[in-house]
Amino acid sequence: MSDYTAPLEDMMFVLQDLAGLDTVAKLPGCEEATPEVVRQILEECGRFSSEVLAPLNHSGDKEGSIWRAGEVTTPSGFREAYRQFVEGGWNSLQFPSAYGGQDLPKLVATPAMEMWQSANLSFSLCPLLSTGAVEALLIAGSEAQKRTYLPKLVSGAWTGSMNLTEPQAGSDLALIKTRAERQADGSYRVRGQKIFITYGEHDLAENIVHMVLARTPGAPEGVHGLSFFIVPKFLVNADGSCGARNDLACASIEHKLGIHASPTAVMVYGEREGASGYLVGEENAGLAIMFIMMNAARFAVGLQGLGVAERAYQKALAYAKERLQSRDLSGAPGPAPIIRHPDVRRLLMGMKARIEAMRALACVTAASMDIARRHPDEAERARQQAFVDFLIPVVKGWCTECGVEVASAGIQVHGGTGFIEETGAAQYYRDARITTIYEGTTAIQANDLVGRKLAREGGATARAVAGMMRATEAELAKQAGEDFAAIRARFAEGIEAFSACVEWIDRIYAADAKAAHAGSVPFLELAGIVCGGWQMARAALAAQRRLEAGDGESGFCRAKITTARFFAEHLLGRTPALRAAIVEGAGSVMALGEDRF
Amino acid sequence: MSDYTAPLEDMMFVLQDLAGLDTVAKLPGCEEATPEVVRQILEECGRFSSEVLAPLNHSGDKEGSIWRAGEVTTPSGFREAYRQFVEGGWNSLQFPSAYGGQDLPKLVATPAMEMWQSANLSFSLCPLLSTGAVEALLIAGSEAQKRTYLPKLVSGAWTGSMNLTEPQAGSDLALIKTRAERQADGSYRVRGQKIFITYGEHDLAENIVHMVLARTPGAPEGVHGLSFFIVPKFLVNADGSCGARNDLACASIEHKLGIHASPTAVMVYGEREGASGYLVGEENAGLAIMFIMMNAARFAVGLQGLGVAERAYQKALAYAKERLQSRDLSGAPGPAPIIRHPDVRRLLMGMKARIEAMRALACVTAASMDIARRHPDEAERARQQAFVDFLIPVVKGWCTECGVEVASAGIQVHGGTGFIEETGAAQYYRDARITTIYEGTTAIQANDLVGRKLAREGGATARAVAGMMRATEAELAKQAGEDFAAIRARFAEGIEAFSACVEWIDRIYAADAKAAHAGSVPFLELAGIVCGGWQMARAALAAQRRLEAGDGESGFCRAKITTARFFAEHLLGRTPALRAAIVEGAGSVMALGEDRF
Repeated sequence: MSDYTAPLEDMMFVLQDLAGLDTVAKLPGCEEATPEVVRQILEECGRFSSEVLAPLNHSGDKEGSIWRAGEVTTPSGFREAYRQFVEGGWNSLQFPSAYGGQDLPKLVATPAMEMWQSANLSFSLCPLLSTGAVEALLIAGSEAQKRTYLPKLVSGAWTGSMNLTEPQAGSDLALIKTRAERQADGSYRVRGQKIFITYGEHDLAENIVHMVLARTPGAPEGVHGLSFFIVPKFLVNADGSCGARNDLACASIEHKLGIHASPTAVMVYGEREGASGYLVGEENAGLAIMFIMMNAARFAVGLQGLGVAERAYQKALAYAKERLQSRDLSGAPGPAPIIRHPDVRRLLMGMKARIEAMRALACVTAASMDIARRHPDEAERARQQAFVDFLIPVVKGWCTECGVEVASAGIQVHGGTGFIEETGAAQYYRDARITTIYEGTTAIQANDLVGRKLAREGGATARAVAGMMRATEAELAKQAGEDFAAIRARFAEGIEAFSACVEWIDRIYAADAKAAHAGSVPFLELAGIVCGGWQMARAALAAQRRLEAGDGESGFCRAKITTARFFAEHLLGRTPALRAAIVEGAGSVMALGEDRF
Repeated sequence: MSDYTAPLEDMMFVLQDLAGLDTVAKLPGCEEATPEVVRQILEECGRFSSEVLAPLNHSGDKEGSIWRAGEVTTPSGFREAYRQFVEGGWNSLQFPSAYGGQDLPKLVATPAMEMWQSANLSFSLCPLLSTGAVEALLIAGSEAQKRTYLPKLVSGAWTGSMNLTEPQAGSDLALIKTRAERQADGSYRVRGQKIFITYGEHDLAENIVHMVLARTPGAPEGVHGLSFFIVPKFLVNADGSCGARNDLACASIEHKLGIHASPTAVMVYGEREGASGYLVGEENAGLAIMFIMMNAARFAVGLQGLGVAERAYQKALAYAKERLQSRDLSGAPGPAPIIRHPDVRRLLMGMKARIEAMRALACVTAASMDIARRHPDEAERARQQAFVDFLIPVVKGWCTECGVEVASAGIQVHGGTGFIEETGAAQYYRDARITTIYEGTTAIQANDLVGRKLAREGGATARAVAGMMRATEAELAKQAGEDFAAIRARFAEGIEAFSACVEWIDRIYAADAKAAHAGSVPFLELAGIVCGGWQMARAALAAQRRLEAGDGESGFCRAKITTARFFAEHLLGRTPALRAAIVEGAGSVMALGEDRF
């Protein structure tokens, strides 16, 4: 029995009509990504997610991962599911064939990742972390490191982990204390404690390749004195097999609000002779490599927000269709399925509209990642990379905040039943809550957006995004009918609010960074809503084109236009207030003395 | 060790400067409620809450209540705490002296209830349910019933429970199936199953007085065929002592997302000979009595939203002052306490502003309850009762939604640490989540507000509220300075949005109730924000008067004005968008076919 069905129809629509699958498939190396092949892959992935991963979600939550004497046992069924995941080639989808991957575009991997996250957030964190490790090594690893680690990480035979956080160093990596001392053979001895290490220890794979940020002796203070190390659980023999156990241990795992099946480890490096670590890139240049890994992870965590929202929506929808309570206000006799009641309908529309906007935004970003990586023209690559860099904090921050909101709405649709753990709706609410925190809280994303992605470049990319949105608005203006007029009116307000904030932040940043940052999270929300609304507007236009061409399912296309209108009226409408809070409200954020709280 | 301190300064300010404690103390029977006496009571209550209730909150969550063979054992310490609660006279604060109560106004009981909820939400549910039972019996019970049950319920020697929900009858009481058959002696035999019964079984008190909605043979279908029964766990002997066990049993308790210490029972009545029940009022007139009980409980659940928010705020604030991460953007060297970082400050301001607005709104409502009950002039009583009736769904709906939001912000301030259960922040988030559901979901409150409280009376009370708000706006206009100008601008927008929605709902309701209800929850949110903003505006004016008179703590008064401005700029600013969503957005809520979800 599975209660998750992959939303293939919407995924294919987004890939083809919004994210430009045809353009991506023309990129060097992506030629196999035809619509037919992609649909087959996603169908298969949906089946796997529904049949193998989804049934372990609730049981995995109840059982949790268990720590005992340094070993972690994942919940029943996880080992077998991971074996099938690796065997099915799912881990290697988006990686280069040079290391055993399938060379598929990020655009195709993105809906696949969404499915795994929907089906089983805790499970899917394991490949999520491996992906970060692969991306870091692909870009920054030496040839020998790539040869040693990539084939195993790409297949999934080994998994990866990210070791940044320490008790005193969370958002502030400058405070990292873990030490790495160079040995005569060029390797390092790593000593220190890392916390909150997702899948830092587990029983799913033969080896765990830890990516560890540490300081070498004499390194400068702060983030520019961090170096990036590979520290494998088992040292690797010359023939590539696993050798001696490295000097690292999982001291405990955390007892958490959610994602119980995903072990969150306290890792201790070098309690004896020091853990053997291998420098990636240069000493003191770890931050940039960390960011490669981190950006991959941030995008994937954004997909978690989307994934958990989709799952919560499917569960709430099924309940709303089946639960009979109270009469239909339109007068039909007898208790009605609660989906007929206006507020339940509003909740479901709000869930559906956010999900479709998130999916479109994530896939459009993924397509730009593919172009930024593979396009023959350097200027085009740079242009797309700037777009990606701007959107990653938005995808991470906005989609995860929406994920929490949608999971909460899912409980609300269930009423009292939603508060009972057996129902399962509460798990999504608990699981979703971590996504706005790890890989950088929403505030960290917002600071990145406002500081690095906007102020540092004088707002250039943000203005380019606004320009693209205005082009969509011009297309809306050409459409007849109330729906498009309503969408256009709210979208235009949204662009206006976004642009006004961009100009204000650009203007004020140098003189008063605190004021700009006081509105950073509201600005991220504004950017998320406007960019999401933009994609919904594009979706409505595409749906209209299909309707006019008599192409595609007309029910789907009409629903898309209605959903875009709902998004405009119920979400885009918030943008003027966000603008006012950002531009006029900064003062009252910072005015109160610390002693008056 | 306690990590909860009652916010006495703000409570006394609200009671005296906003809720008219002096006016309430002039009501017949309230003469003892002088500021000095009230402060003493609240200080003592704060001590009790901090020292006795708060330390059991986290341990109670971990341990939970345990069901075994029909008996429920509450977590360690709960029995002793309840004994002290009763012994201290806390249960009887607001009840009539005729039954052993202390005759204190609801206005004084309200901050006391807030403290218990802050200190221990699970514990405080027990007296919350007893309060509902007392209020129902005070108004609708026979003299004999009052004599038998009230002294014990008032002291807390016995507790009460509310038995409405059945598996097929949640929000829809029309579907209740529990049967009650009249016996020769005038008592009834009750048979049926009730679910989600808070403190339906426990070990804190000698007897549990269940208030049960059931149908008599031949009763009309729907809610007008419901009768209201007293069904005690132990039958009561002629001398008032507990006699034979009644034929009712707790079949199990639920495994829930939160409030683990509060047992949520499945109750089975009449598995053998039928449970002995005693009719309150007339047959088929149970709904009105249920509403007396329910309104008391709804107000108290609104206070739970406030209470859990205050606790979450105190915890987050302590962490924000102590946790050092990243530099202060103003340039001071070394890692700063995170309260200096703009987004943490914004989160804390948002929590603080909501809490102060909720507290003020709840206390102003409580004062009106006192006047509505005790004022010598009938017209004044009626006027105040209409105000209370209008505000109860707002207090319940808005304060609980805010409670969830504030508890979530509390986790966010903690970052990764907030997701770890040992920290305690996650418990508030889990506990808070039930408050928007039980005693009527937010949608049920909103339907009550839009249907019964607005449309049914043609918007009269809503218009009266708007008139009172305009009077406050006129006072704001007389004040000099930027703060008051900013508050006034946003408040005026808020009143305008509120009034526009009132007129629209009043106009459209008869022709298209679905459209009105599609915006009912957004309208409740709008009403909450505007009424909360109104109280914050009044608070700012009162603080300004104190500053001018050189009366009271100037730091407190200035902070109040700043907080009111924050509320205006960051919350009141949302009202135009809510208005648009309500008035223009109803169509897109209902437009999609059920099969397109």
